[in-house]
Amino acid sequence: MDLNIKINDNDHLDIGGADAVEIADKYGTPVYVIDEDRIRENYNRFYSAFSRYYPKFKVFYACKANTNFAVMKILEQEGCCIDAVSPGEVYISKKMGFSGDRILFTGNNVTNDELKFVVDQGAVVNLDSISALNRLAEEVNPDGIKISFRVNPMVGAGHHDHCITGGVMSKFGIMDVEAVEAYELAKDLGFEPIGMHSHIGSGILDPEPFKLAIESTMDIAGKVHQDAKIDFEFIDFGGGVGIPYTPDEKVLDINKFAQENVNLFKEKLKEYDMSQPTMYLEPGRYLVGDASVLLVRINSVKQSYRKFIGVDAGFNTLLRPTMYDSYHHIVVANKMNEPETQTVDIAGNICESGDLFARDRKMPNVEEGDLLAILNAGAYGFTMSSNYNSRLKTPEILVHNGKCHVVREKETFEDLFNKQHIPEHLQ
Amino acid sequence: MDLNIKINDNDHLDIGGADAVEIADKYGTPVYVIDEDRIRENYNRFYSAFSRYYPKFKVFYACKANTNFAVMKILEQEGCCIDAVSPGEVYISKKMGFSGDRILFTGNNVTNDELKFVVDQGAVVNLDSISALNRLAEEVNPDGIKISFRVNPMVGAGHHDHCITGGVMSKFGIMDVEAVEAYELAKDLGFEPIGMHSHIGSGILDPEPFKLAIESTMDIAGKVHQDAKIDFEFIDFGGGVGIPYTPDEKVLDINKFAQENVNLFKEKLKEYDMSQPTMYLEPGRYLVGDASVLLVRINSVKQSYRKFIGVDAGFNTLLRPTMYDSYHHIVVANKMNEPETQTVDIAGNICESGDLFARDRKMPNVEEGDLLAILNAGAYGFTMSSNYNSRLKTPEILVHNGKCHVVREKETFEDLFNKQHIPEHLQ
Repeated sequence: MDLNIKINDNDHLDIGGADAVEIADKYGTPVYVIDEDRIRENYNRFYSAFSRYYPKFKVFYACKANTNFAVMKILEQEGCCIDAVSPGEVYISKKMGFSGDRILFTGNNVTNDELKFVVDQGAVVNLDSISALNRLAEEVNPDGIKISFRVNPMVGAGHHDHCITGGVMSKFGIMDVEAVEAYELAKDLGFEPIGMHSHIGSGILDPEPFKLAIESTMDIAGKVHQDAKIDFEFIDFGGGVGIPYTPDEKVLDINKFAQENVNLFKEKLKEYDMSQPTMYLEPGRYLVGDASVLLVRINSVKQSYRKFIGVDAGFNTLLRPTMYDSYHHIVVANKMNEPETQTVDIAGNICESGDLFARDRKMPNVEEGDLLAILNAGAYGFTMSSNYNSRLKTPEILVHNGKCHVVREKETFEDLFNKQHIPEHLQ
Repeated sequence: MDLNIKINDNDHLDIGGADAVEIADKYGTPVYVIDEDRIRENYNRFYSAFSRYYPKFKVFYACKANTNFAVMKILEQEGCCIDAVSPGEVYISKKMGFSGDRILFTGNNVTNDELKFVVDQGAVVNLDSISALNRLAEEVNPDGIKISFRVNPMVGAGHHDHCITGGVMSKFGIMDVEAVEAYELAKDLGFEPIGMHSHIGSGILDPEPFKLAIESTMDIAGKVHQDAKIDFEFIDFGGGVGIPYTPDEKVLDINKFAQENVNLFKEKLKEYDMSQPTMYLEPGRYLVGDASVLLVRINSVKQSYRKFIGVDAGFNTLLRPTMYDSYHHIVVANKMNEPETQTVDIAGNICESGDLFARDRKMPNVEEGDLLAILNAGAYGFTMSSNYNSRLKTPEILVHNGKCHVVREKETFEDLFNKQHIPEHLQ
């Protein structure tokens, strides 16, 4: 099984050298636990896989996956750059030590104020439409401003319809057929168009769709290079590299993946007689997904028409299973070596019937009080969480060298009062 | 068309006597705007429809739909009670002036600490499982503690699979066949079991499934009354009464709905020789759904392989279209009387392809800068919102007698720093 699971001598789940049971006892549940070393390992494995075949290579972390400040700091220390999709992400990145030139902003349907803010922060703007280009020209002096365009490579792939970002149905990017015109217009307006970006989807474990995306994007870039006379400083193929979520899924052979895609990239550079632009990739899930678990406590075991194992978190805490029908592997953190004996539904504490972490899941015999670990909770976990049902957001614990650090405190009821005012006539 | 839409003399959308265009100009977009009078009208229409046929009737607002403090205060003033599903909702309700006896707590997979907290606050606890009954008995002295049980009436209905809460697949409630045993056990433990609760789903515009639920629940209650000798103080049929979301949907004839369901209720009381328990219903959406709109500004019009109208909010602000594929009617608030001339997709600003407020929607000709109003945003709007993509939560404006009151301020970037700490070794 290719999932990131370690077990200690007590038959408990080990997270970065710390015991999951001790963490839950000390900090309460539900709690997100982040393994610092795993993030560093993931980054270095990814970076070295590509850079060995093409040294002009940079990793832009898709921080929408997890903007916890400690996570951002860890990747800043490793030399990573940032893929930001909102002014808030640019703001956080700057605060966490990323200089503007290490931030590529790829927004969708951004306002004029937002475009101006991002440029003022020194980030490079990757434009999603000709509308955004024209509006940016109204907001800033284009002279010396480097920009790129997101193009729709007409190839889509991903783990869920919601996450397929290329192809005719997609809201993202400019059309392949209008790329030359867009780059020429950008030059005419006085900008310096230096990059091209594409992104086909997420959760991809198969090299084939990614190769199609490289091929398709490079054909657009080649045409823009030749017709609009653009000498690209970078070409960015976005993110989408997946991780195994189920016990059956195989981890991607990242070296083979890198080699095959880099070779294709080089072939295309030659075909279109292009110089050596820097290759960018934007992993999110790959860097942080398997570095966190969500620990939840079983508080009720109910034999209804089905058997329900009830836990103390819900889809407000981890939305993916309900929203995307995503599989997250779940283990009994205090009984790691017990055989599976039953098939159950694992239900959350939110008042909606869709609030289930798993349907028909094989599990060992469990009791109220047992601790479950929902694996691969590091990407699109906390960042998608909400206060729905007036539930409080969870704390986050970072584990480093076996030691725990509270990197986010649990909310309190008083936090639900944040920003609210009751008008006089209702007091 | 049965949607709640008013237009003023400037051909602008009117919200409670205020001009939507002026609100957007003054407070910015995106912004939720709540019409106080509409909530009061909805409450009174609902309450009087039922109470005229059965005076022993109480409305418990399902506050998970919208826990804005002003909304809670308005319903408190009207004499409404509260259906709370979490300790946080109980806490807010108490702060907003609801005494414990006006709060019925119906949790799912709640912890022992949560059960104790709710009882300590004076709320009546509606238990979802025999597990919860046994655990409550460990936490509090049962003497004099009034409880009820949620039963699964084996009937389900609703606007989305996620919202069908009765039937064999449901995680909610005790089974019909174990009801007598549960009430007897509660008595043996020393509790006072005085109520029964069921809830079949939400968004129901058809009286038929509701009648089945009343029939089915009353058959369980009748059996419990006869076999376990319970003299019910209340029977609660939950929520689920829908509102029209599309122009084709018809508003429910609430008087006919009330009359038919009350008649059935009375017949069943007679059949099982029961006295006159109070009838509870738990509307959420019906009271607040059509009282709010979400105002968003068009910032980009993009002709790609499809035509996309891009706006300055995303599924972090209003999750329903992406999560449940829900239809929300959308009007051009600054051009209310223009004919529909095109078919477009209306896209948000979140970096996921599923971030669409509408697909293939007929719209008038619109330009960048136009103001859209997403209707029926009062229920499961703000309460499900998140900071995904590091986007800030929106402000909320309450309109009363044509005057605007800021009932929730917009977040700032600094709010994204709330509760976070960076450990020393990463500083």
